[in-house]
Amino acid sequence: MFLSIEKLISNITPDRLDPAAAKALQEALGGQFGEMRTMMQYQFQNFNFRGNAKPFRDLVRGVGTEEIGHVELVANTINMLLDGASAYGGIATQPDTLPLANALNGDGNIHHFLVAGQSARPVDAAGNPWTALYVYDSGNLVLNMLYNLMLEATGRLQKCRLYEMSNNKAFRSTVSYLIVRDLAHEKVFAKALEVLGVNWGKVLPVPKIDTSGMPEVRELESRNLHNQQWTFAKDNSDMAKIFSGPSPFGDGELETIEGLPDGFAIPELSERAEEFAPGLDQELLGQVGKTMTSPSTTGTQRASAARNT
Amino acid sequence: MFLSIEKLISNITPDRLDPAAAKALQEALGGQFGEMRTMMQYQFQNFNFRGNAKPFRDLVRGVGTEEIGHVELVANTINMLLDGASAYGGIATQPDTLPLANALNGDGNIHHFLVAGQSARPVDAAGNPWTALYVYDSGNLVLNMLYNLMLEATGRLQKCRLYEMSNNKAFRSTVSYLIVRDLAHEKVFAKALEVLGVNWGKVLPVPKIDTSGMPEVRELESRNLHNQQWTFAKDNSDMAKIFSGPSPFGDGELETIEGLPDGFAIPELSERAEEFAPGLDQELLGQVGKTMTSPSTTGTQRASAARNT
Amino acid sequence: MFLSIEKLISNITPDRLDPAAAKALQEALGGQFGEMRTMMQYQFQNFNFRGNAKPFRDLVRGVGTEEIGHVELVANTINMLLDGASAYGGIATQPDTLPLANALNGDGNIHHFLVAGQSARPVDAAGNPWTALYVYDSGNLVLNMLYNLMLEATGRLQKCRLYEMSNNKAFRSTVSYLIVRDLAHEKVFAKALEVLGVNWGKVLPVPKIDTSGMPEVRELESRNLHNQQWTFAKDNSDMAKIFSGPSPFGDGELETIEGLPDGFAIPELSERAEEFAPGLDQELLGQVGKTMTSPSTTGTQRASAARNT
Amino acid sequence: MFLSIEKLISNITPDRLDPAAAKALQEALGGQFGEMRTMMQYQFQNFNFRGNAKPFRDLVRGVGTEEIGHVELVANTINMLLDGASAYGGIATQPDTLPLANALNGDGNIHHFLVAGQSARPVDAAGNPWTALYVYDSGNLVLNMLYNLMLEATGRLQKCRLYEMSNNKAFRSTVSYLIVRDLAHEKVFAKALEVLGVNWGKVLPVPKIDTSGMPEVRELESRNLHNQQWTFAKDNSDMAKIFSGPSPFGDGELETIEGLPDGFAIPELSERAEEFAPGLDQELLGQVGKTMTSPSTTGTQRASAARNT
Amino acid sequence: MFLSIEKLISNITPDRLDPAAAKALQEALGGQFGEMRTMMQYQFQNFNFRGNAKPFRDLVRGVGTEEIGHVELVANTINMLLDGASAYGGIATQPDTLPLANALNGDGNIHHFLVAGQSARPVDAAGNPWTALYVYDSGNLVLNMLYNLMLEATGRLQKCRLYEMSNNKAFRSTVSYLIVRDLAHEKVFAKALEVLGVNWGKVLPVPKIDTSGMPEVRELESRNLHNQQWTFAKDNSDMAKIFSGPSPFGDGELETIEGLPDGFAIPELSERAEEFAPGLDQELLGQVGKTMTSPSTTGTQRASAARNT
Amino acid sequence: MFLSIEKLISNITPDRLDPAAAKALQEALGGQFGEMRTMMQYQFQNFNFRGNAKPFRDLVRGVGTEEIGHVELVANTINMLLDGASAYGGIATQPDTLPLANALNGDGNIHHFLVAGQSARPVDAAGNPWTALYVYDSGNLVLNMLYNLMLEATGRLQKCRLYEMSNNKAFRSTVSYLIVRDLAHEKVFAKALEVLGVNWGKVLPVPKIDTSGMPEVRELESRNLHNQQWTFAKDNSDMAKIFSGPSPFGDGELETIEGLPDGFAIPELSERAEEFAPGLDQELLGQVGKTMTSPSTTGTQRASAARNT
Repeated sequence: MFLSIEKLISNITPDRLDPAAAKALQEALGGQFGEMRTMMQYQFQNFNFRGNAKPFRDLVRGVGTEEIGHVELVANTINMLLDGASAYGGIATQPDTLPLANALNGDGNIHHFLVAGQSARPVDAAGNPWTALYVYDSGNLVLNMLYNLMLEATGRLQKCRLYEMSNNKAFRSTVSYLIVRDLAHEKVFAKALEVLGVNWGKVLPVPKIDTSGMPEVRELESRNLHNQQWTFAKDNSDMAKIFSGPSPFGDGELETIEGLPDGFAIPELSERAEEFAPGLDQELLGQVGKTMTSPSTTGTQRASAARNT
Repeated sequence: MFLSIEKLISNITPDRLDPAAAKALQEALGGQFGEMRTMMQYQFQNFNFRGNAKPFRDLVRGVGTEEIGHVELVANTINMLLDGASAYGGIATQPDTLPLANALNGDGNIHHFLVAGQSARPVDAAGNPWTALYVYDSGNLVLNMLYNLMLEATGRLQKCRLYEMSNNKAFRSTVSYLIVRDLAHEKVFAKALEVLGVNWGKVLPVPKIDTSGMPEVRELESRNLHNQQWTFAKDNSDMAKIFSGPSPFGDGELETIEGLPDGFAIPELSERAEEFAPGLDQELLGQVGKTMTSPSTTGTQRASAARNT
Repeated sequence: MFLSIEKLISNITPDRLDPAAAKALQEALGGQFGEMRTMMQYQFQNFNFRGNAKPFRDLVRGVGTEEIGHVELVANTINMLLDGASAYGGIATQPDTLPLANALNGDGNIHHFLVAGQSARPVDAAGNPWTALYVYDSGNLVLNMLYNLMLEATGRLQKCRLYEMSNNKAFRSTVSYLIVRDLAHEKVFAKALEVLGVNWGKVLPVPKIDTSGMPEVRELESRNLHNQQWTFAKDNSDMAKIFSGPSPFGDGELETIEGLPDGFAIPELSERAEEFAPGLDQELLGQVGKTMTSPSTTGTQRASAARNT
Repeated sequence: MFLSIEKLISNITPDRLDPAAAKALQEALGGQFGEMRTMMQYQFQNFNFRGNAKPFRDLVRGVGTEEIGHVELVANTINMLLDGASAYGGIATQPDTLPLANALNGDGNIHHFLVAGQSARPVDAAGNPWTALYVYDSGNLVLNMLYNLMLEATGRLQKCRLYEMSNNKAFRSTVSYLIVRDLAHEKVFAKALEVLGVNWGKVLPVPKIDTSGMPEVRELESRNLHNQQWTFAKDNSDMAKIFSGPSPFGDGELETIEGLPDGFAIPELSERAEEFAPGLDQELLGQVGKTMTSPSTTGTQRASAARNT
Repeated sequence: MFLSIEKLISNITPDRLDPAAAKALQEALGGQFGEMRTMMQYQFQNFNFRGNAKPFRDLVRGVGTEEIGHVELVANTINMLLDGASAYGGIATQPDTLPLANALNGDGNIHHFLVAGQSARPVDAAGNPWTALYVYDSGNLVLNMLYNLMLEATGRLQKCRLYEMSNNKAFRSTVSYLIVRDLAHEKVFAKALEVLGVNWGKVLPVPKIDTSGMPEVRELESRNLHNQQWTFAKDNSDMAKIFSGPSPFGDGELETIEGLPDGFAIPELSERAEEFAPGLDQELLGQVGKTMTSPSTTGTQRASAARNT
Repeated sequence: MFLSIEKLISNITPDRLDPAAAKALQEALGGQFGEMRTMMQYQFQNFNFRGNAKPFRDLVRGVGTEEIGHVELVANTINMLLDGASAYGGIATQPDTLPLANALNGDGNIHHFLVAGQSARPVDAAGNPWTALYVYDSGNLVLNMLYNLMLEATGRLQKCRLYEMSNNKAFRSTVSYLIVRDLAHEKVFAKALEVLGVNWGKVLPVPKIDTSGMPEVRELESRNLHNQQWTFAKDNSDMAKIFSGPSPFGDGELETIEGLPDGFAIPELSERAEEFAPGLDQELLGQVGKTMTSPSTTGTQRASAARNT
């Protein structure tokens, strides 16, 4: 079973709206090497785990549970880049305005506006829907570890390429966070293989990417985030039996941490009339709003304010 | 963020191996109306939630988090039906035996043996891989609630059909559990629509399925499981602002319960040599096994014993 | 625009239930060379027709409209082969019976029982869903005619192979009808190419299949059905400007006929409780049934009777 | 069986060429909630109809037949937006001109130019091919009605979003027509559910979209088009037994009308040499043109003239 | 078996970088009528060839082997259009530069930059991955020949449309080469059908495209390339028993040539640091480079120089 | 460019017909880890190779060219298992026989009979068509080598599972050959990584499968086939700069061999009338057969004879 915690795993730095960046960032969500895939792949390896090497299972389960939070993080970041990308004009009073005309610009993903109401979709940067064909679980532990290492390494490569595509701060804060976590996850699986007998020598991390020009990444690494792994488990986990000792990449000491990090407030999205979203009219709002809603104006205003700065 | 709890949401009654039933049960895992879909659909609706009607968001988040545990439950049940479906003969000593010959029987899914090593796959009963095309999130709250109601109702219809396909107790214990939980989830979304103004009259639950001939279902309903909804949240949830009062189907009183149920031990799968799974040979086991594994023999033996009874 | 006529284009000879034949016949419905494809391909060529060669457009439109009726015919035939393939036992009174156990037999398509309630699905014989990737419309008239000829010829080849797979009379009556109509449609497009300058010489029909061993086919050809083409148009059609004169295959005289054939009664499917289909319980039936339904018992009884003969 | 009528169900107001709008409008043709899907879904529900509630079948059949005409309407509208979007330069005399260079602009769909010769394709706005995975037919009448209602409501939501994307008059005339017809179809299925016992109260239509700022929509509603349903059947239909009385949305009186509306002339597309379409050269035209073509110059000239105004 | 020859089948004229042209050219690589498809289709027809008409098999095998070289040619051409489309800035020294920002431009395919490191992908111009659904092999020789003719003709039509989209010389040199080879291949299959009895009369080539305005095409045809077919076989081939005599299109004499053409040097792609490709850092290069690499600087410089001219 | 050699890379031991084994073997042809995938993946890595480390390119090119021959081998083996799986009865003289009735047996793939005329298809063992989504080419050399190693290792795992499914000698001869070649290819990529700095220690080969109970495999290894790699290149190749020295798995000495192995005669498939394949009737055969065919009766008879032994 799983439990939700109403916190985001990393903070999204507010910045300008950017539908083209939102489209690109979909690769990290629904792409072949994105977070939906790592989440599903590790969960299937967890559910189907075979044999009594419990530390390996705890390791796969822990990382797989972190990935659900990564899916949440990327979806929220895409929403921050999209929400309001249409300039609302009000169709009732200005019939000739085109509040969603931006959607026709080929730089973005038209489905963001037409299907999803300016929010994230389970697709990649080219618009292809995520497919379970991506999920790898061979039943063989060594192969699974090797594949997972390659998966994290490719994911990190693509995120480094994403980093170079846009300097949008919201985009980069999440991309940088994922670059560092993918590095930590590479170590998780490299370490697992090391326990099983591989001496990686010179080729790790794969690829050896110089991220010294990415200040957001350096800042996170300065806090040792690239050597830490939370268990994301309520119960005891044997993850530390594998994830400990010197980093297989020779860049510090691995730390297994019980539980999960503190987290950050989840951004709130306000109503967006031109998308008929959420589609609660005054009459319905009258009933529902009064009796049930929490006062969330502050959060919304903060998010809006941040963008306009 | 999310946290894993090392417990299964429902108990799987041990029974005979049954690859044909395992193949059928895949519909409840990777089918168009299966648990991977409800999980992903509700999580996307959660991440992309718009407007300040927090109780609705908490409701979608809570059910969506329960669904991750359902994916886990169905995967484990499929594994119980599959694991050992090949009679291991040992290729080294008996070169002419065919330990995986069962896989050629058209009643099962050959990929269960060939690709996954006798465990669950992210596909439906006809072998089609799960696709994100299934995920519905329109950005419009009322439409989302209506679609979710229809989704749960169709899921429940298919599970009632599954119930009639096999009397395997492992199969039926999980199918029955899901029939009852789908009913509870139907109520979640029907109640949400009721709050928004629908008076359902005669047509609910949709379809009106007589489950009085399904004793496992009745037993679970006698414990009011069809009227309960856990929040599956670590923090406070406003779910109860919607999910309370009389059932929209007139069959009891709705209960929102903080947190999650107690759960059951997760079954363990032993090594399966004919699948080269997990593929840790003696040399590797020598090193890994001694230092890291937990004593899990009891659990494994219990599971095996149960099957042979 | 289009108008529906409550008649089936060909008669389905009653015979035994046969889920394996139903699965095979799906190729003629949702296969790459099945009726959904011809229908969609010709309609797209019709909607996108370019240039003022109206007789060609009328020809494509006419055949394309006939194909909608072919989709209807094949779907109804599949239903005749499936409906009742489960032996209904009544779950309320006999909890241990397994009314849908047949669905676990690998010879059939499990989705027929699990998803569709014993009726047709938009998939092929291997269970792959129909995809619009099949639709060919190049904008170039000659290429379209050539492709259509090849499409009909391949469709006919596959139906001749189907004929050899089962001697079920319901199955064969529809397969034979389609073999003859595909031949007529081959002539439609071969004739169109002939008008444009091709002298086919020896290779038509492609493939040159000897159907003299298929009595149902011969009987239909004895009525010249392989040389006829209805316009399936309410208005005047110029189809006859192309489809007339000697058959390009040297086997008779082509006839263009205004309108559409007389047709046959559409079979009725009765309620099927084990599928929860149609899912109208007594209470709802009480209201709906009394005020609205037509007396259709006769038709249903006839269909049932035919099967039991 | 079906019959074609050489008329378009709604008039397309002539306006400027607009490949970006054509790309967007593909969602209404080949999208998950577009007309190909409603057509196929209702036809499958029609072919597979079970039980003796004939009025429900007639209702599904009637709307499903109307939808074939909607597919035709949207395809023709896309063609009006595309045809001539390349400026023809004549490759023989001006070898360096690039008549199809517009196709490289990311705002349009390159397949419109490269594959289809400036006409409609069976894909959605993001270029994904239509798939039969979209078709829902559970065999359960109540669920089918509920799903159809949700389908029409989502289709209408997306069309309202389309309306806000472009003020192209050709685009908007068809989008507006579909918004109104989707509303009528929502009522068809809402009414069906009402007959079965649902009292909808406040949430219908779902979503409650204020279309008062869409003058084309208002104009059509002023003619009661949102409360009318033709039977699109040649024979008697029992549709009126359900579709009559006050609108379930409280906005007028429902009318079932026998047959089909008058319709409008289908636009003609002239030859487009840069696409090699239709590809009849002078020699072939010499033979075919003289003997077979109808004088259609007037129609073509009118269409061209309208665009140049 | 197959043997590789380190030569390109046609020369790529150097010209400017052009990601939009690269995206369009993908249709000729991974499109429904592109080179991956012809290659796979003919190879399957070759492997599955039935009956003793060896000349037909040799013909299919020869053309199918040429097509592997066409896949290589188109991939290399796409690479020439892409490689360097990002202006490298060096992330270490200039942290704010965006070397891959071009990728966000909707005119190109973002996966070219994000997934493939500025090189070719197995997808079409709209980004859809190639699928084996395209492969046609009916087992029937005549149908296969007819389908192959249609396939080559449609491929040529699309390449003629591509020709009109861009005057980039690299793009056009390959497109023109393929236009001529597709014509030769049309003749291969038309001739095969002619041997079997078809007199094509007026409609060939289909479509009759006037390429007199395409000088690159004329130049190649002046060398009779449109009437030649290499056997691409190391052993004797009976291809000439079919491919000889007058062209079925009346434009010259067919020639079967043993073996394969001379070919051209394959372009070399240099390291591209902003893509982390090839990802060999100095340390690795130190070891690998010194001992193993051939001096290829000349080739690389030539390619670069050509572009800058 | 590429050249075909009319030889099969390995010999197929004749044995009984076996459609279920043919269906299973499709995984090795069109599966996610089958030969079509390795072929396409390595060819794309070859075409898109970047940087001047020519030995790596030659290595990828050589293995990628071998894989085309593997596709040929598996297709031919499937054909040997299928061809004649229907017992031909002759429809003209015995109208009630069902020559293709075997196709309705769920153990086989119905498309083998219905679509392909008893020959191989580009699909996997579950019938899913091959998709280019499988192709991995990141542009990063180290990642490509790592992925290729994992790909070969998973392919070998699946083939070892296949080995255990059937003792059909034709099936096993090809499966065993591929097990050994996949091992050699694992070494190719492991060696490449070793050159780059990895010391694999205990975990190679991955997985460590004990094949001592597979006599066909041992026999091939006794000839050192698991340590050899042909260049499959007509020209000089630098492959030996990497592939030489001790095996990274400590089981012998690596050998790079110029060119390609001798090969074996390609089996011939005779006419199959019940599939209308090849569909050349007497009249056509009269003309074509006399003038063009080679005397191949001997080969055909030998193949048939082998089966009947």
